[in-house]
Amino acid sequence: MLRLKRIGLKTYDENVAFLSAQCRIYKPEAFTTLNKVEITAADGRRIMASLNIVENGDMLGPENLGLSIPAFHRLGTPEGTEVSLTLATPPRSLDSVRRKIGGEVLSDAELDAVVRDIAAHRYSKSETVAFVVACAAFMTTDEVLGLTRAMAAAGDHLVWASPSAPFPMLADKHCIGGLPGNRTSMIIVPIVAAYGLPIPKTSSRAITSPAGTADTMEVLANVDVTTERMKEIVAANKGCLTWGGHVNLSPADDIMITVERPLAIDTPEQMVASILSKKLAAGATHLLIDIPVGATAKVRTATDAARLRKLFEYVGGALGLHMTVIITDGSQPVGRGIGPVLEARDVMSVLRNEPGAPQDLKERAILLAGHILDFDPALRGGEGQVTARRILADGRALACMERIMTAQGPPPHPATLGHLVKNIEATASGTVVAIDCFRLARIARLAGAPTSKGAGIDLLKKVGDAVKRGEPMYRIHAAVETDYSFASDMALEAHGYTIV
Amino acid sequence: MLRLKRIGLKTYDENVAFLSAQCRIYKPEAFTTLNKVEITAADGRRIMASLNIVENGDMLGPENLGLSIPAFHRLGTPEGTEVSLTLATPPRSLDSVRRKIGGEVLSDAELDAVVRDIAAHRYSKSETVAFVVACAAFMTTDEVLGLTRAMAAAGDHLVWASPSAPFPMLADKHCIGGLPGNRTSMIIVPIVAAYGLPIPKTSSRAITSPAGTADTMEVLANVDVTTERMKEIVAANKGCLTWGGHVNLSPADDIMITVERPLAIDTPEQMVASILSKKLAAGATHLLIDIPVGATAKVRTATDAARLRKLFEYVGGALGLHMTVIITDGSQPVGRGIGPVLEARDVMSVLRNEPGAPQDLKERAILLAGHILDFDPALRGGEGQVTARRILADGRALACMERIMTAQGPPPHPATLGHLVKNIEATASGTVVAIDCFRLARIARLAGAPTSKGAGIDLLKKVGDAVKRGEPMYRIHAAVETDYSFASDMALEAHGYTIV
Repeated sequence: MLRLKRIGLKTYDENVAFLSAQCRIYKPEAFTTLNKVEITAADGRRIMASLNIVENGDMLGPENLGLSIPAFHRLGTPEGTEVSLTLATPPRSLDSVRRKIGGEVLSDAELDAVVRDIAAHRYSKSETVAFVVACAAFMTTDEVLGLTRAMAAAGDHLVWASPSAPFPMLADKHCIGGLPGNRTSMIIVPIVAAYGLPIPKTSSRAITSPAGTADTMEVLANVDVTTERMKEIVAANKGCLTWGGHVNLSPADDIMITVERPLAIDTPEQMVASILSKKLAAGATHLLIDIPVGATAKVRTATDAARLRKLFEYVGGALGLHMTVIITDGSQPVGRGIGPVLEARDVMSVLRNEPGAPQDLKERAILLAGHILDFDPALRGGEGQVTARRILADGRALACMERIMTAQGPPPHPATLGHLVKNIEATASGTVVAIDCFRLARIARLAGAPTSKGAGIDLLKKVGDAVKRGEPMYRIHAAVETDYSFASDMALEAHGYTIV
Repeated sequence: MLRLKRIGLKTYDENVAFLSAQCRIYKPEAFTTLNKVEITAADGRRIMASLNIVENGDMLGPENLGLSIPAFHRLGTPEGTEVSLTLATPPRSLDSVRRKIGGEVLSDAELDAVVRDIAAHRYSKSETVAFVVACAAFMTTDEVLGLTRAMAAAGDHLVWASPSAPFPMLADKHCIGGLPGNRTSMIIVPIVAAYGLPIPKTSSRAITSPAGTADTMEVLANVDVTTERMKEIVAANKGCLTWGGHVNLSPADDIMITVERPLAIDTPEQMVASILSKKLAAGATHLLIDIPVGATAKVRTATDAARLRKLFEYVGGALGLHMTVIITDGSQPVGRGIGPVLEARDVMSVLRNEPGAPQDLKERAILLAGHILDFDPALRGGEGQVTARRILADGRALACMERIMTAQGPPPHPATLGHLVKNIEATASGTVVAIDCFRLARIARLAGAPTSKGAGIDLLKKVGDAVKRGEPMYRIHAAVETDYSFASDMALEAHGYTIV
């Protein structure tokens, strides 16, 4: 028996085990071929892990079995407990992965087995990559449907109710992303909730972008609430804007995303399965999907957008969701701020009906909220947008947002705008004809967003605006000197604006 | 600047870097998204690595950058030197990988760029898996050719010569594997070399099988010789039987194999590219490929074998190799011994023309050697086998083998048969109709082969033999008690023989 030792390595959610090359109980060479093992604790708990051989003695002794942070938590027994090691029997579902690599079509049962094994951390990272790549290479529409169902089934399900009964309708919205500053959810949720339609919005924190809705909402309120508390908030206010980290809606998808992202694999099939599996598990009945199209957005052409829309509609329809998929302008960032504090400022300025509020963010939010209100059979056809505009204009949306903020509690830390400021000036006079969303997102991220809430970019000029040489086009905010110079250098190298 | 620290982790040949979560010079969060970094030493040397964040302080300090064993060796600067860290620019060839995932056909130039980046360790493990899986999903014959050329070009090339001039012909052979005990190379090389045709055979050590030719040859002689010494031995004796570890023939293939093996990806396309790229780089002009077919061999049906043969012939032909591809019986292990010492005994018994020598091993070696001799235009058509049989019978092959053994030097350690012996007895009377190659290889490996040279299996009965209940079918040899019981338990659970 070996003694368990925790190794403080994060290993990107993968179960990794460590064994000393000097181990006398097991022969490390016996394991190197397949490099996958099963670890069993004395109480019978077991996990699978990829095995790594440690050469020298400073990380663990020959009597130890080391587990990386995620593996240690999953085994769930304390350091020093006795564990044994066996060569892992590869999950049988890997045969389906190999069939998929060979171009075959997998049945619902096969997809279900693969997804369950991924969710249970029985796949190594390489095995997950193999499945993801094989799916990216070729997938039928029915496989997308099967995968979506399997991913939703492998996670937790949310059930929503008013104090008296389940909600007959539960709205949700999702933007496929790629547009900096596009924080419409924080305006749509208060409009829809003020109307009376339940819309519990859980969001992620940014992973590659300068801010996720959860990051921006956290400038205004606490977003880290338990599932039970979230249900209470929605029962009382019809809406919430919280971080989704407490709900384990599609664990297989979370794992697949950790390998898809570094590989920049982002096919329509995987996007649809990922988004719809989570919406299904979250209990949505009526769903609005927003696909921004633009030269530097995630979806670049109308053809691609149309294809993606059809796939969403097909799979969502087969899952019994009421869906509206709209294709929107994704040619430039939305609003003026990029980064949590700046985006929160834009959102509140729209909700407060301030005269200087960014009109594109406002109109976009009204358009989307209108489509969601149109789901209500009680509303006369085409009345959605008018109603949404009225709820925003008469202050009901603002009041609802304030109730939600109060219910969620104050933000964990006060956030202020980064005090290091750099104006990026136009290098020529003319008219702004394009803004590179990718470039600006990258600069905002280097400035420190979203970790540093007050970091980001404040856009002073947008597409269509006239600009004079030397006039500032945008302003970088940072809180830390190194972030400031990283971001400034990148902006000076190429600012991302096209002026003609 | 960070200070370099060596972390004793083997990380399966992947470059892995470690940074403390408490690092004050770089923000670990800035790197977690893409998890790939470039490390630059003060003298300008640089490597790419996957970044892992270390939580606590026992592995490295906040001022350190840790590198796993392979990464540390590749950077090549001592511990304590100053290094800096930047987010790695992903290799441009990853665009080709994504195109390949999307089902497109890559040009020779694209394949070349991918292979060069893999060979230079610029791909993360996941990126290599993505390329390998995409290739396994779909590849044209011309892509196989392009990949083979690219893999050979990315490695070292061997040039062979007699003391006076380059060899006009250089023979080589390769068995695609899967048959335990199939050590024909150690008989073929002395026959062909004794005939006068140069045949420098470099072999691998076993990775998943109970013995590779290098493991078995090492029972009889030193196999770890430098490339220069190997060339001298071949110039003097026309043949050698050495370990290929000193020659870097196809580094990209070596890396791809480390990900293919755990995933059990073994397509004809990858097999052909892997084998032929190495043979090309090794300078072979005439090549014999042996494809054993059997129910438990690597290739299971005649159809699969024929398809593989055609692919070998097409690609080999386009590369200018003179090739013979033969399909052989792969229904059971070859010879009697499985494991280095037992196989070496069989080989020497054939070379010594002992009456009890395993006839199947002998006939197989003569068949293959005959095909190689037939490459010689000076030999009358069909004379190859007769000639090979004569060279073996009259002792010239044995004499040649002894010269090669003397030239390579004595084995590094004396190897004797494992003293722990277990007879596995027939559970019924009848005739042996099948032997499971996979099962016996697994049992031999558990017994300790190839690390423990004297471990393995001695077959007492083969297909077609009559056997009585209680009579031993084979004998397990082991040197260590735990190996002995692992192997015995597995054999008693299912012995791998079918008796009817």
